[in-house]
Amino acid sequence: MAPPQQITQLFDKIDSLKPQFIQRLADAVAIPSVSADAEHRPKVVEMAKWMEKQLADLGATDIQLKELGIEEGTKDLHLPPIVLARYGTDPSKKNVLIYGHYDVQPALKEDGWNTDPFKLVQEGDCLYGRGSTDDKGPVVDWLNILQAHNELKLDIPVNLVFCFEGMEESGSLGLDDLIKAEAEKYFKGVDAVCISDNYWLGDSHPVLTYGVRGVSYYTITVEGPAADLHSGLFGGVVHEPMIDLSHVFSKLVDPKGNILIPGIAEMVAPLTKEEDALYDNIKFGLDGFEHNIGSQTVIHDNVKPALQARWRYPSLSIHGVEGAFYNPGAKTVIPAKVVGKFSIRTVPNIEPRKLDEVVFAHVNKVFSELGSKNKCTVELLHDGDYWVSDPNNWSFRAARRATKDVWGVEPDLTREGGSIPITLSFQDNLKTSVILLPVGRGDDGAHSTNEKINVSNYIQGAKTLGAYLHYLADEQKDA
Amino acid sequence: MAPPQQITQLFDKIDSLKPQFIQRLADAVAIPSVSADAEHRPKVVEMAKWMEKQLADLGATDIQLKELGIEEGTKDLHLPPIVLARYGTDPSKKNVLIYGHYDVQPALKEDGWNTDPFKLVQEGDCLYGRGSTDDKGPVVDWLNILQAHNELKLDIPVNLVFCFEGMEESGSLGLDDLIKAEAEKYFKGVDAVCISDNYWLGDSHPVLTYGVRGVSYYTITVEGPAADLHSGLFGGVVHEPMIDLSHVFSKLVDPKGNILIPGIAEMVAPLTKEEDALYDNIKFGLDGFEHNIGSQTVIHDNVKPALQARWRYPSLSIHGVEGAFYNPGAKTVIPAKVVGKFSIRTVPNIEPRKLDEVVFAHVNKVFSELGSKNKCTVELLHDGDYWVSDPNNWSFRAARRATKDVWGVEPDLTREGGSIPITLSFQDNLKTSVILLPVGRGDDGAHSTNEKINVSNYIQGAKTLGAYLHYLADEQKDA
Repeated sequence: MAPPQQITQLFDKIDSLKPQFIQRLADAVAIPSVSADAEHRPKVVEMAKWMEKQLADLGATDIQLKELGIEEGTKDLHLPPIVLARYGTDPSKKNVLIYGHYDVQPALKEDGWNTDPFKLVQEGDCLYGRGSTDDKGPVVDWLNILQAHNELKLDIPVNLVFCFEGMEESGSLGLDDLIKAEAEKYFKGVDAVCISDNYWLGDSHPVLTYGVRGVSYYTITVEGPAADLHSGLFGGVVHEPMIDLSHVFSKLVDPKGNILIPGIAEMVAPLTKEEDALYDNIKFGLDGFEHNIGSQTVIHDNVKPALQARWRYPSLSIHGVEGAFYNPGAKTVIPAKVVGKFSIRTVPNIEPRKLDEVVFAHVNKVFSELGSKNKCTVELLHDGDYWVSDPNNWSFRAARRATKDVWGVEPDLTREGGSIPITLSFQDNLKTSVILLPVGRGDDGAHSTNEKINVSNYIQGAKTLGAYLHYLADEQKDA
Repeated sequence: MAPPQQITQLFDKIDSLKPQFIQRLADAVAIPSVSADAEHRPKVVEMAKWMEKQLADLGATDIQLKELGIEEGTKDLHLPPIVLARYGTDPSKKNVLIYGHYDVQPALKEDGWNTDPFKLVQEGDCLYGRGSTDDKGPVVDWLNILQAHNELKLDIPVNLVFCFEGMEESGSLGLDDLIKAEAEKYFKGVDAVCISDNYWLGDSHPVLTYGVRGVSYYTITVEGPAADLHSGLFGGVVHEPMIDLSHVFSKLVDPKGNILIPGIAEMVAPLTKEEDALYDNIKFGLDGFEHNIGSQTVIHDNVKPALQARWRYPSLSIHGVEGAFYNPGAKTVIPAKVVGKFSIRTVPNIEPRKLDEVVFAHVNKVFSELGSKNKCTVELLHDGDYWVSDPNNWSFRAARRATKDVWGVEPDLTREGGSIPITLSFQDNLKTSVILLPVGRGDDGAHSTNEKINVSNYIQGAKTLGAYLHYLADEQKDA
């Protein structure tokens, strides 16, 4: 079915504005808005002001740079502001909140970049530069859409509420509080949230993302002697904390990834036929995983269970040990106190507090069975809940129609294995549905050297996001 | 039985020289001969020259400062010389090689010393200062003995061959080669070797030491992905090297110190009734161990099995992991490559190459049973053999008589849990018996802050070492 005329018109306009859109992204990439680094903080603020000016020039209203105060642990380092803006205030229209971030990961040419990371460089279909795909490309695409509509004098059939933060790469400091504070104020009446800050699964097929796993991060502290000991003097004489910890570690998860903690499997929502079927036609192969990890060490022999393992089942990873010998070479130490680190990726319907209960009980039981005289403590370091949306709700239906118009295919419905805490924060505080609608590809190298976005993704992305807004107006909100 | 008259005379002389002996130790401690630190190297050399002058003034002959060349890994840092000297060359006498070291561990006041570490300070019966017990006290005692005999015009009934090195605290670089090179030259005809560079087990009962454990240090490398992965993206999808390693670790040793590698227990020399009896009357309790480690986490409920575990049984310690997350806080990393470090303390009759065989076979078998697609490599990093002497041989008989004369008690016969590679090097290259005859106490804090030697140990130590020389002449060499 051909798209409606105003959408075809929009697509043509976007195509014709391609050079201007690329220049706009180049201008954004040129500002090194690295949030992790205090010295770059003025550049992050400069980027916020660039966003403010762009939004104002494009007709946004009620633009506010929300100050978030001093960064915790610093003397006088101000957090960069969150940029809020509106485009349209027609009370008869639905309200869509658009989230993105204007800060970027650190980047130095000498890290291995082929080009200056803060100069957008086009080679073939690729635009290289820090932030090109994460997340300046998508953010600038929202600006591009405003320009296209303005030039066409085409109405956007929904009201837009923009929320752009400048600390996403550094823990989204201040965002959660702001969402709570503005839920009934600036964000009042929001009907849907759209976030474009993740990626296609592979490099050829568009996706819509309807879930992320949560994470609960634990420490196991085993302590015995008052100070590190020499293994010559005390090897065989004392209970060694590192030996105890190794035994506890081995009782958490087996080498094939099966979690050995009783009670967790029972919490996992059963896989329905319908959900299982969602995995049948995903355009991604085991070779895609192998390419990502650079080795043939995927646990599963087929892609379907591997994807389900990443997206809809919990996993347990052992990250390391604090307090033991970690340098190259040999040291004959018996570490006196070791802190083992592991985390569990959570999925529906694992409740964090119930998870803590079974984890603590298991670790304590396993340790007590060792018969060691050392002391063992297990603690939760931090957690974040999973998020799952209904991939058939009105927002997803709109995004699916938009994607089909632009790419000519049904998008794959994906989840993310990693957590994106803001999804849940928006959903819970605004009592609304969230969609992750990515622009970039899985091979873009966000956070890596030579980060890029394909010109085609950047331009087709603008079309997809634009069409999505039109179809949102058209779709009936679910009950 | 009262000691012979010349020994009583010697003891009286030593007592009368106490102030001069303490001053000699103060002079030695005042030279900060820290071998670990290139900047201090001139001080180490200065200390060698101080030794040379002392020996010459006391009538030693054939004094040589053996140059050992440039320290490996440095451009032009000369190793400190090994000081060789003779006292007596009567072909009718036995020849005794005396080993000691004139270098010390690093020490800074701000590390927690109560006094300047390079100024000998007396408080009550204690002489505080870096090197006071390790090993300048014992080394200077040998000089003190020469002075006492000189003043008494008393003949030393054995010829002495001194070998004092300046790199003991930094791996004894160059010593092994020198021993080999001089075995048939400077050291030709040596009948016994005496090393005073270890300590009493506790703080009240003298000991003679007849054995040290060896050590074989291994690495287990488990590698999978080409680079570290994010546990959100790949947790549950890939075989994690750190999980594999934890499982292998747990199959090496149990929390009670039992080695789980088949074939090692069979190599250990059976405990005879005679040897077992050596442990019955050792003046050291479980509380001594608990005091040493600062906790009540000794595996054994009685001191005898704890001492046997330290001295005459092998042990396996897990030291740490290279490549995993080791900092405080949380990092959701799946380490791509981890290197586990463990070592085995060896005892008679474990042969290092046979040990390697069973270790490699076990680790490979355990890993293959995990069903992981990762790669595992087990390697030997370094090893050093155990050393055990006959605690009833002529050198030990002489030392026992000397100890009884001075302390009025039978010395405990001890071993060391840690390795002292030079024992074996002297024994094997000179084809002779070695005795460890300590001067200091177990609580002296060698290598620690506020290192001390008791005045009583220092003075009685000189008597013990002196009487030992007389009884060596008296004892019949074993066949």
